[in-house]
Amino acid sequence: MKYIAGVDIGGTNTKIGLVNNGKLEIKKSIKTLSEDGVIKTMNRIWEAIRELLTEKNIKLEELVGVGMGIPGPVKNEEIVGFFANFPWEKNLNISEIFENISGKKTKVNNDVNVIALGEAVYGAGKGSKSSVTIAIGTGIGGGIFVNGKIISGFSGAGGEIGHLKIVKDGKFCGCGQKGCFEAYASATGIEREAISRLMINKKNMLYDKIDGHLEKIEAKDVFDCAKLGDKFSIDIVDYEAEYLAMGIGNILNIINPEKIILGGGVALAGDILLKRIKNRLGEYAMPVTLEKGFEIVLSTLGNDAGVLGAAALVSQNKA
Amino acid sequence: MKYIAGVDIGGTNTKIGLVNNGKLEIKKSIKTLSEDGVIKTMNRIWEAIRELLTEKNIKLEELVGVGMGIPGPVKNEEIVGFFANFPWEKNLNISEIFENISGKKTKVNNDVNVIALGEAVYGAGKGSKSSVTIAIGTGIGGGIFVNGKIISGFSGAGGEIGHLKIVKDGKFCGCGQKGCFEAYASATGIEREAISRLMINKKNMLYDKIDGHLEKIEAKDVFDCAKLGDKFSIDIVDYEAEYLAMGIGNILNIINPEKIILGGGVALAGDILLKRIKNRLGEYAMPVTLEKGFEIVLSTLGNDAGVLGAAALVSQNKA
Repeated sequence: MKYIAGVDIGGTNTKIGLVNNGKLEIKKSIKTLSEDGVIKTMNRIWEAIRELLTEKNIKLEELVGVGMGIPGPVKNEEIVGFFANFPWEKNLNISEIFENISGKKTKVNNDVNVIALGEAVYGAGKGSKSSVTIAIGTGIGGGIFVNGKIISGFSGAGGEIGHLKIVKDGKFCGCGQKGCFEAYASATGIEREAISRLMINKKNMLYDKIDGHLEKIEAKDVFDCAKLGDKFSIDIVDYEAEYLAMGIGNILNIINPEKIILGGGVALAGDILLKRIKNRLGEYAMPVTLEKGFEIVLSTLGNDAGVLGAAALVSQNKA
Repeated sequence: MKYIAGVDIGGTNTKIGLVNNGKLEIKKSIKTLSEDGVIKTMNRIWEAIRELLTEKNIKLEELVGVGMGIPGPVKNEEIVGFFANFPWEKNLNISEIFENISGKKTKVNNDVNVIALGEAVYGAGKGSKSSVTIAIGTGIGGGIFVNGKIISGFSGAGGEIGHLKIVKDGKFCGCGQKGCFEAYASATGIEREAISRLMINKKNMLYDKIDGHLEKIEAKDVFDCAKLGDKFSIDIVDYEAEYLAMGIGNILNIINPEKIILGGGVALAGDILLKRIKNRLGEYAMPVTLEKGFEIVLSTLGNDAGVLGAAALVSQNKA
């Protein structure tokens, strides 16, 4: 049997799994502890992989390679330009470092690109020739799968959909620029808009739900109140859906994928949001991109997308 | 020797050439006469290819295939969803029709995508792993070259950069939607903006140049007056550069290509525009996408891009 190890490195935890023919056979989570430095972290990951092999009675020779998702831009599936949260050097060749430790072929890509690859190959995009996965959470990340590959980009920043500018001189974004898609349509974007409106309108279910503590608001509160019929919250969901339709419409006009896959915390709002996006998409996407066969769907792999996608970095490259 | 025929089908004229190893050996132009119907037009094109073969003393067996660029969305390098200017049926399999006439393997793609492929493989993008070609003329078209291929899209509409929405509820576009990149940054966009401003300000060089005949204005007039120091026209060039920077910045954030290649009539304005775009790009593109090695350049193949790119449809597919 042939196995691939998939590794999804996060700021706090690192998920590790063994994948055989697209099936996640066993998985575990360890602390990333990036403050120990890159070499220690990589050794700890390799140790965890070997433990999983032992546990499943798999010989070391049966492990054909290792795929990794990492928060940061990744070039040539090897070099990480910089690490979003870790105190590690710039331009580290993580692939080489891990190959030296493990003796196994190692491919690396950006964590969101890896999730998109997982959804494209094993999840909601399975069977589609092209898909764009949009992860809507604190920020908005994306990954573009087309012609059998992820668009990683010249400097590893392919698919940075959250920083698409959709409003000229618009709201400030955490990236330091203005008018970004994620400044409007991420969970944070919803919360900013809700707080701005609550400052001048306190007679609504949402204000009561958070007991007037504006700093406590979460995007989920807005969706929950909207689902209960609160007009104030429904208006914010409308606002959110409008900008999501604009951003997604732009992706459709540029990439024209077979599927748009929505993931992340905001996507959990489900139909109340999805229906509104679909209703508005025709104002932003060219009609030809919405032709029969196109679908906008929710992600299906959940927390396993990163590990499965990381494994796919190895299996896809062999194809 | 092995030759490929490249065919660039336009609304009025069709350019045809024979390409050997990336070199355009001989070319000619014939009238498209699409009103005669698709079969007659395709027969006429095949006749012209055979004339070129005879003229260069090339045997029919030395012709390995035919590539075609066509104005309209093309699926699977075969089927044209609809023809932008021709009175031909929808969803015609042009590849099959031409293979039946010629007995030669035929690949078809959208005309702008084909130009982008030509620039990527033989022109300004030669040697780069990824490039996005943006043709700025009456409208704005684009083609995205990445991982060795053009992104054609699920319904043949990949790279429709001109219809990226950059202003919510913005200016009306010829496509029927609002706020499109090309409504602001195409030659027509410049002309609309100039006319709108000339309605209320007639004391400038531009107004004098067109003798007050607003309907005669061309984007080139604006650039010409700006180059002569007309403040009114320089302001319009600034406006144009701002929206071009926004649109190009968005492409950089999504695709992160190694090169942006500017073509079309507006690109002929040259440095007066290019410098201004470069100065503003940092407000819209993420810094990582502008890293060392990235370049924004002018197209180099001129009118031959379509014929060379069409031939590349065949040569690239064999690779």
